Amino acid sequence: MYSFTNDYSEGAHPRILQAMMEANLTQNTGYSLDAHTSRAVQLIREEIRCPQADVHITVGGTQTNLLVISAALRPYQAVISAATGHINVHETGAIEATGHKVLAMEATDGKLTPALIQKALDIHTDEHMVQPKMVYISNTTEVGTQYTKAELEAVSRICRQKGLCLFMDGARLGSALTSPANDLTLADIASLTDAFYIGGTKNGALFGEAVVILREELKPDFRFMIKQRGAMMAKGWLLGIQFEELFQNNLFYDLASHANAMAQNLRDAITACGFPFASDSQTNQLFPIFPDELIRELGKDFTFEMNSRVDDTHSCIRLVTSWATTEEGVSQFVQALRRNAQLYKD
Amino acid sequence: MYSFTNDYSEGAHPRILQAMMEANLTQNTGYSLDAHTSRAVQLIREEIRCPQADVHITVGGTQTNLLVISAALRPYQAVISAATGHINVHETGAIEATGHKVLAMEATDGKLTPALIQKALDIHTDEHMVQPKMVYISNTTEVGTQYTKAELEAVSRICRQKGLCLFMDGARLGSALTSPANDLTLADIASLTDAFYIGGTKNGALFGEAVVILREELKPDFRFMIKQRGAMMAKGWLLGIQFEELFQNNLFYDLASHANAMAQNLRDAITACGFPFASDSQTNQLFPIFPDELIRELGKDFTFEMNSRVDDTHSCIRLVTSWATTEEGVSQFVQALRRNAQLYKD
Amino acid sequence: MYSFTNDYSEGAHPRILQAMMEANLTQNTGYSLDAHTSRAVQLIREEIRCPQADVHITVGGTQTNLLVISAALRPYQAVISAATGHINVHETGAIEATGHKVLAMEATDGKLTPALIQKALDIHTDEHMVQPKMVYISNTTEVGTQYTKAELEAVSRICRQKGLCLFMDGARLGSALTSPANDLTLADIASLTDAFYIGGTKNGALFGEAVVILREELKPDFRFMIKQRGAMMAKGWLLGIQFEELFQNNLFYDLASHANAMAQNLRDAITACGFPFASDSQTNQLFPIFPDELIRELGKDFTFEMNSRVDDTHSCIRLVTSWATTEEGVSQFVQALRRNAQLYKD
Amino acid sequence: MYSFTNDYSEGAHPRILQAMMEANLTQNTGYSLDAHTSRAVQLIREEIRCPQADVHITVGGTQTNLLVISAALRPYQAVISAATGHINVHETGAIEATGHKVLAMEATDGKLTPALIQKALDIHTDEHMVQPKMVYISNTTEVGTQYTKAELEAVSRICRQKGLCLFMDGARLGSALTSPANDLTLADIASLTDAFYIGGTKNGALFGEAVVILREELKPDFRFMIKQRGAMMAKGWLLGIQFEELFQNNLFYDLASHANAMAQNLRDAITACGFPFASDSQTNQLFPIFPDELIRELGKDFTFEMNSRVDDTHSCIRLVTSWATTEEGVSQFVQALRRNAQLYKD
Repeated sequence: MYSFTNDYSEGAHPRILQAMMEANLTQNTGYSLDAHTSRAVQLIREEIRCPQADVHITVGGTQTNLLVISAALRPYQAVISAATGHINVHETGAIEATGHKVLAMEATDGKLTPALIQKALDIHTDEHMVQPKMVYISNTTEVGTQYTKAELEAVSRICRQKGLCLFMDGARLGSALTSPANDLTLADIASLTDAFYIGGTKNGALFGEAVVILREELKPDFRFMIKQRGAMMAKGWLLGIQFEELFQNNLFYDLASHANAMAQNLRDAITACGFPFASDSQTNQLFPIFPDELIRELGKDFTFEMNSRVDDTHSCIRLVTSWATTEEGVSQFVQALRRNAQLYKD
Repeated sequence: MYSFTNDYSEGAHPRILQAMMEANLTQNTGYSLDAHTSRAVQLIREEIRCPQADVHITVGGTQTNLLVISAALRPYQAVISAATGHINVHETGAIEATGHKVLAMEATDGKLTPALIQKALDIHTDEHMVQPKMVYISNTTEVGTQYTKAELEAVSRICRQKGLCLFMDGARLGSALTSPANDLTLADIASLTDAFYIGGTKNGALFGEAVVILREELKPDFRFMIKQRGAMMAKGWLLGIQFEELFQNNLFYDLASHANAMAQNLRDAITACGFPFASDSQTNQLFPIFPDELIRELGKDFTFEMNSRVDDTHSCIRLVTSWATTEEGVSQFVQALRRNAQLYKD
Repeated sequence: MYSFTNDYSEGAHPRILQAMMEANLTQNTGYSLDAHTSRAVQLIREEIRCPQADVHITVGGTQTNLLVISAALRPYQAVISAATGHINVHETGAIEATGHKVLAMEATDGKLTPALIQKALDIHTDEHMVQPKMVYISNTTEVGTQYTKAELEAVSRICRQKGLCLFMDGARLGSALTSPANDLTLADIASLTDAFYIGGTKNGALFGEAVVILREELKPDFRFMIKQRGAMMAKGWLLGIQFEELFQNNLFYDLASHANAMAQNLRDAITACGFPFASDSQTNQLFPIFPDELIRELGKDFTFEMNSRVDDTHSCIRLVTSWATTEEGVSQFVQALRRNAQLYKD
Repeated sequence: MYSFTNDYSEGAHPRILQAMMEANLTQNTGYSLDAHTSRAVQLIREEIRCPQADVHITVGGTQTNLLVISAALRPYQAVISAATGHINVHETGAIEATGHKVLAMEATDGKLTPALIQKALDIHTDEHMVQPKMVYISNTTEVGTQYTKAELEAVSRICRQKGLCLFMDGARLGSALTSPANDLTLADIASLTDAFYIGGTKNGALFGEAVVILREELKPDFRFMIKQRGAMMAKGWLLGIQFEELFQNNLFYDLASHANAMAQNLRDAITACGFPFASDSQTNQLFPIFPDELIRELGKDFTFEMNSRVDDTHSCIRLVTSWATTEEGVSQFVQALRRNAQLYKD
């Protein structure tokens, strides 16, 4: 069985593991106050062209989202998200558990627009309703799409006009930035958002998300938040080492490019066989629509997530590639697809 | 100016004020442990035909909703509500502030159905998502509609099958129970729900909502919840006295009937003038759709809430009557409507 | 049986009830946006000599405390309180339920001092500990004592030096301000604190606490907090009317003076009989220490709270007077005390 | 510089790192639903002689404490802790952030006793106060002491009698169980508590705490809690692998024994030099009291935490050993101590 279930099925890139091995018996200061973390922070600041940014490295995505959002909002304030947003659907109410409403807006292709943000503002007019104060976007989105520079600029503009804090969930930011459809850089993102995070877990690290805080009001006391939410790692240098490696010698981008290339191969084959996609993704998550019998057949040798039922005889599945996806795995899938496509085609 | 803005523009029915006057200088035990409250609880238990129910009287609706919901749910559990539900829209995120997600379902006429509840269950399948555990319905709903006995039975049935706690917000329960379209009794509601409340604030009391708890697991320690949320009134007998009066000599039903009758007069006149309604209400809230110019004209002598824009030249307004609405007020509105209807009709 | 159990056993002063009666059928704007509330706010601003203060009137004390404290603190910040403070002991963890730790300091006579505040600061040094950011004091305290002007100035000074928000719980502020030991005015308190509240429930109102906000950062959006915590009263003018009456013609002070005078009579008699007090109170709460047999005897005709066991044969009880305490009630207690004092004296 | 600052200055035991390397490119199911975790859970169940226990592995201690405590308590319930307890002092109010009060009891040597627990119950009598429902103990404690079997049995007995949930924080459980003063086994702890955790971070793992849940009511839906609090690791098998190694071939005990032996060497030398300790620890944390000048001298070659000032010229420091502490490091410290002891002795 080969798995296209997600992008966190394998461990870390060997260079990262090697660095952890080498540092293993050196004594480090705890709680991310170590030299590895300092260096990782420095590398990230350079990459985003923002020397005054605060950078904290945390363990996982849900943790990071709840930290940033609860740090930014007063008790009665809410965060606007696409209805498909990770915080709205797949975090077991983590944001609400910190006391805040997620204002879910139905969006096309998983992306918020100025019009959707304005709509959320228009319907929240007084103190009987929550006060929208933050905008949460994911790049790539949960349906594999990504923001263009123009789209992000437009979202950023309305946020600044309306006093909304703009936060980008970058769990799969590597895949977005290395997609053929991309025209954004990390420096662009740093200049257009108030906070964002750079995902490591899904791009070659064992774990780790680097939170970048740009807005001044969000900076003070963020370590208090980290500690209180149980997100401060005793051996924090483990996080630092991983991001040191990712942001040396282009590793972060190389790994994401590989994931995207593997996805592109799958995408080409699926298209060639004549199957449609539920969303237009040029990143490492694909959402093809297949006949149910074909899905059953593919399921004999490959694992993947069922996404949604499309009609009585078709469903949408999710295929995910990663830095660790092998050409062989992809090639076997493509062959199996070609072999069965004719039999189960409508 | 005469106000149809809401049903809490005036104080209390004179009999209630009189009772408060008479008890004013008698020393009472504090915190709702007094004889008036005991008697009110007893009267309510008799009215709902449920001697083992727990009854607590609180000050207001948002307070009551957050109390019951946060008492019933574990941290990761969520409450299903119609998208128009008061807890979803008009309580400034009070439920989320206690840590729980409101699962808002788009509903016709403000009412949840077994199909909508099943849909909420179907899309929440594992520990990455909140666990739906409670169903919140309002009767009357926020758009003036009401549940029939058959509808409530159907909702109750699926809740019991699926282990969901069913809670009815009865801020306007008096209006529902005395509407011509009603076939429910308080005893029916007590047998079909796990908890509900009987609204006093909008039906003749100065303030006060009587929370009825039927489900055994919800009963223990509810007074701890009340105190912790700042909802325990020092002079709790003030709440007891008001519900004593409401549930003696039919006052609760008489006042609601009056409000409904006043609304019926408005409804008849609006219909006679040929204007439609946004929802089919036979209760004390009406949602007529008028030309904007007519609305402007009526606004010179009457106050009411703008509900929503319908098209470029029409809007929906909300007219609310109460136990205190005068026949004269209604009659003046009807005259003003008739006078202007022709002028501003399309 | 005559009750000295608390200062909320009776209803409201007749002038207040009369005002509520007169306004009963007038239509008012809801949610404290009415003319009575505006006028009450104006009267309070004049009384405290602070025209730019924000004033909101809420229903009860626990509600008020949790509102102000949760509005002022970020998630990881804590409030310093005397260990005897109401928020630390008698609010069922209401402050913690909003997410904040109460830092309880052992204090003499229920009062915080600069030294105690400094101690709390000294032991909270980094992000592994909560960050003290607010100081909560009660005046009168929970043991009947009160702050002198010099004491309050000293507390205020350290708070300003250290960036701490100073909040005074004034549930019994009337009694403090009319005590013979008092040298503070409402205007002093307004100039020395960041927020405080003026208790109505325990001083002649049916219910109601007027929250005064002085610090600019605390002012914005406070009505969102009120609504979210379930503390916004639909018929908010009921609160306005009560404070209009209290701050017209000196009623607030007259009622508190009466309560203090009644307590002074009890205190004189207890002292004359040779019994000591657990705290030196010149306000409306007394904490005499009596032989247990005397307590039993007094308990036949009077109700009061047991405060604490002092030794095998003595206990401390709490006697509370109010605006409604009658001279006859006091006189009967004094007689019973004198009659039994000899019999049960050591 | 050699560090005795804490027991998380180094990475993981080589066998653990080796196992992580070997598994690195194997595809694993995410979110702790993998075979390594299953095997680790099985090994722990065997070790604690409790096949029906639920075991979940989380990343860190604060996270674990807040998860277990917030899963066990209803909103108005509180947890009893020694005043020195980690949850009371060093978790930035993490427990309060989930809504619960920590009832801190002043304790000798960091340990709760039945008398202290009873005292907490005695002063919490009604719904105006929080309801104590859980007891939190640490073993070893924050001052290096440990519970004997008799002490734990006594604490367990009162908890069962009074319906309190007993939770042991085992961040340093390895050190407790391998101390010469120990007479407890993991199986004893499993039979005497309702939940506890076995610390990995401070005993040879990179990170990881194994939460063992014994009480049936605590078991359902714990994974929802883990996810909601941001504590569910995508690559959860990393946790599984580490505990597999720790509970194979006695590694968990061997590593803790080493840490204790290193501490014992320090302790013997300190005692031989005639210096006292602030607490009687036979575990991996020592709290010697030294003259300030000696501390300054030792600080030139070693790092450690200042614990507290004892008098004008003496302070208590904390020395911590771990599985990674070298004999050489200890020996150098002992030499430096001997060399300077005479010079700086009183």
